[in-house]
Amino acid sequence: MKKITIDANTYVYPNPVTLVGTQVEGKANFMALGWISRVNAKPPLVGIGVNRVLHTAKGIRETKTFSVNYPSADMVEAADYCGIVSGKKVDKSDLFEIFYGHLKTAPMIKECPLCMECKLIDTVELPTNYFFIGEIVMSYTEEKYLTDGKPDIKKMNPLLLTMPDNSYWTVGEYAGKAWSIGKALKK
Amino acid sequence: MKKITIDANTYVYPNPVTLVGTQVEGKANFMALGWISRVNAKPPLVGIGVNRVLHTAKGIRETKTFSVNYPSADMVEAADYCGIVSGKKVDKSDLFEIFYGHLKTAPMIKECPLCMECKLIDTVELPTNYFFIGEIVMSYTEEKYLTDGKPDIKKMNPLLLTMPDNSYWTVGEYAGKAWSIGKALKK
Repeated sequence: MKKITIDANTYVYPNPVTLVGTQVEGKANFMALGWISRVNAKPPLVGIGVNRVLHTAKGIRETKTFSVNYPSADMVEAADYCGIVSGKKVDKSDLFEIFYGHLKTAPMIKECPLCMECKLIDTVELPTNYFFIGEIVMSYTEEKYLTDGKPDIKKMNPLLLTMPDNSYWTVGEYAGKAWSIGKALKK
Repeated sequence: MKKITIDANTYVYPNPVTLVGTQVEGKANFMALGWISRVNAKPPLVGIGVNRVLHTAKGIRETKTFSVNYPSADMVEAADYCGIVSGKKVDKSDLFEIFYGHLKTAPMIKECPLCMECKLIDTVELPTNYFFIGEIVMSYTEEKYLTDGKPDIKKMNPLLLTMPDNSYWTVGEYAGKAWSIGKALKK
């Protein structure tokens, strides 16, 4: 078990793949984003790391809202496309069927199995990125993606991203019940 | 494609499963944590959402350091155990083989295929949680987990967590090359 050091520029393993929706200069825009986490339990807050120069950063700072949409694996081409082309140069507003919820400036994607609309509550200014913290005001799904009223990951079939090998993956096998399987080790 | 609303208390899908290492009152402690994201490109910064009342929060505030360790799927019981019992009541310092890197107060887990040692650079105070932002000062792995010098997710075989169904999952099938497969949609 000999440890070797690798680059400090190491990535969280793996990242969920999301599409962040914003309204920029009056037009819906979507970027592919893997740097996301829940950050607070009550109220439900989510944070996203967005490069400062991106069109999405401009939209969030303008409207104080954004959405987080989870593409399913069969949307991999469109999701990746949103990470390749900038909204500064390409109009991505007609890539998907769009809908809006309570917030009027957080466009969401109908084709995505799970969408969250978020109200910006804090912005952490970091050297190359903004970390935008938003309160999830509502989430949207469809009956067919639920099991016992809860989002079913295998039905939603989201994508994962690994860096720096830059690969997408699906979710694999069930590996146990959380807050339960470890009880075997209790003394 | 009829959308229905679900709870605003929705989770990032899915979370990576990590074990956060801290030194608390002079003793190594580990908690299971899924609320993690890279938050900045240069320097490499990672953020973790930790409930304010936890032993881990105390350790990070005391030492200004922490580690992030990725258990492989065969460590699922031990990883889950770290999320069930509190370091306030149970000594978790002998659960794993521990090693240290540049920082002297960020215990890492030898059995984990990937470990990052982090220096605290900012703490975002949120209602129920702290969001600790750390700079990754170094990462550790083993030759056997690399392919072409990069961490190989299939060799590392990390765990994923979904909430609120509280299930662990492995990483599944390869689904495409990132920043590449979407080029097919370029006009």
